Amino acid sequence: MPELLNENERIDDLQIHDLKIIQQKDGFCFGIDAVLLSNFVTVKKGYVGADFGTGTGIIPILVAGKSKVDHIYAIEIQKEVAQMANRSIMLNKLEDRVEILNINLKDALSYIKPHSLDFITSNPPYMHANGLTNENEKKKISRHEIHCNLDDIMKTASKLLKDNGSFFMVHRPIRLCDIFVSARAHKLEPKLMKFVHPKPSKAPNLVLIKFVRAAKPELKILDPLYVHKEDGSYDEEIIRTYSIKELGEDLG
Amino acid sequence: MPELLNENERIDDLQIHDLKIIQQKDGFCFGIDAVLLSNFVTVKKGYVGADFGTGTGIIPILVAGKSKVDHIYAIEIQKEVAQMANRSIMLNKLEDRVEILNINLKDALSYIKPHSLDFITSNPPYMHANGLTNENEKKKISRHEIHCNLDDIMKTASKLLKDNGSFFMVHRPIRLCDIFVSARAHKLEPKLMKFVHPKPSKAPNLVLIKFVRAAKPELKILDPLYVHKEDGSYDEEIIRTYSIKELGEDLG
Repeated sequence: MPELLNENERIDDLQIHDLKIIQQKDGFCFGIDAVLLSNFVTVKKGYVGADFGTGTGIIPILVAGKSKVDHIYAIEIQKEVAQMANRSIMLNKLEDRVEILNINLKDALSYIKPHSLDFITSNPPYMHANGLTNENEKKKISRHEIHCNLDDIMKTASKLLKDNGSFFMVHRPIRLCDIFVSARAHKLEPKLMKFVHPKPSKAPNLVLIKFVRAAKPELKILDPLYVHKEDGSYDEEIIRTYSIKELGEDLG
Repeated sequence: MPELLNENERIDDLQIHDLKIIQQKDGFCFGIDAVLLSNFVTVKKGYVGADFGTGTGIIPILVAGKSKVDHIYAIEIQKEVAQMANRSIMLNKLEDRVEILNINLKDALSYIKPHSLDFITSNPPYMHANGLTNENEKKKISRHEIHCNLDDIMKTASKLLKDNGSFFMVHRPIRLCDIFVSARAHKLEPKLMKFVHPKPSKAPNLVLIKFVRAAKPELKILDPLYVHKEDGSYDEEIIRTYSIKELGEDLG
C-alpha cells in the first residue's frame, strides 16, 4: 500500500457527499471549469463512461460520488498525475467504480470496447500546442494540446460512445468554430450549450456543451451563468446550483 | 416615374441622417436584427459591398446613408419586395450608391465580379425550409430557407469577397454549429462574435458574426448586448449605441 500523500501534496475536502481530493501544493489544482462541468453532466444509474484527461480526478470523483453510474474510465497520460488521482479515488473508496487508465487517450480503443460508453466527460487543454508558455511541464500538458488535440478528442469520443451517448465538454468560446467543425466531422452533434461569463457585462470565457452521438442537428442554448455579479460578489445561481461556496474559497 | 407608395405601404422615418424607409402596413417590416447588424458593420470610404436578401433595403440604406461606401449591391429575390426597396433607395437619393438586384443570390456571380467585394451583409432566413408555418408567402420566404440556405449564402459570399473581405451576418445562436461548419468549408473564418440576449438572465437569441475570407482562425467574443434590463426597460447600451434614434454615430 503506497503512502496516501506525497511531499508537496494536500487533501482538500470537496464539501459534498464527504468527497475529498488530493492536490499538489504548488498549484496543480482543479479549477472552476471542472466543477461546472460536473454539475452540467446528466447520467443514469448503471451508466458506463470515461473522463478524458482526468488530472486530479475531480470530474469522475464528483460524478461517481454524486450518482449511481456503474464505471468511469479516468484517462490521464501523465504518470505522476494519474497516480495522484488514483490515490484520491482510493481515499474516496471509489476504486470499484472509477478506474484510472494511465494512457494517451488516442490509445483508448485498445482498452475500452468501441461504442460501449453511455457518456464521456472532458475538461481538455484549451490552447493550441504552439502557444508560448512559461508554465511547468505538468501545467503545460494540461493546458496545451501537446499530447492530443481537439480533433483527437472528438474522434476518440465518437469511437467510444454508443449512438445517442453523450459527450460533455467544457472549453473556451474562442474555440467554438474549431469545436463545432471537429464535432460534426465525427458525428457528435451539439445539443445543449451554456455560456459562463465572469460577470453579466463581460463576454463568456467558458462554454459547457453536451454533444450527442449521431443525433439530429438541434442546438438549444441554455440561460447563461454568471460567476460574479457586477459588484464582484458571487451570483446566487452559482452558489445555489454549482456549490461554489461549498467547494472552498480557493476556487475563485 | 412610378408612384412612391403602393396601397398598404407607409413611410417610416429612421431618425438618423434624415433616412426614411417604405414598409408594408401588414407587417412586412425590418426588425431589430437588421438595425443591430447595421451597427455591427465596419466599412471604409470607397468600399464596394453587397447585402444578401435585402428585404425593405434597411441594411444598405443604413450602411450607405451613414458611411462613405462607394456601392452596395442589394440582392432580393422577391419582385414586389425588391421594387419597394428600390423606391426607398430613391426616396433617400441613394440610387447612385445602392443598386437593387432582383435575383436569387445563387446567381449573383452572373452580375458581380468574383472576389471583387470588400464586404457583404446578410440578415438571412433563420429557419430550415421544412419548418411548419402559417405565415404569408413574403414572410415565409424572408424567414425560411426556401430559395437559398446557409450553405448557398456562405458559398456565394466566399466567391464574391476579396481575400480579407468581411462578411457580417446576424443569425440565431441555435444555428451556430451549422453556421461555423459551412463558413469554414467556404474559407470564411469567424473573427468576431457578439451575442444579443433579450435580458441578462435569458439565453442569447441573436448572434452577430464577422467572418473574414481566408483569415487565420482566431475568434474573439465581444461583450454581450442585452436588449432589456431584468425589469423590462431598455438597456442603456442599446439606447446609446443601437437605438434607431441615435444610429450611426460610429459608422466609418
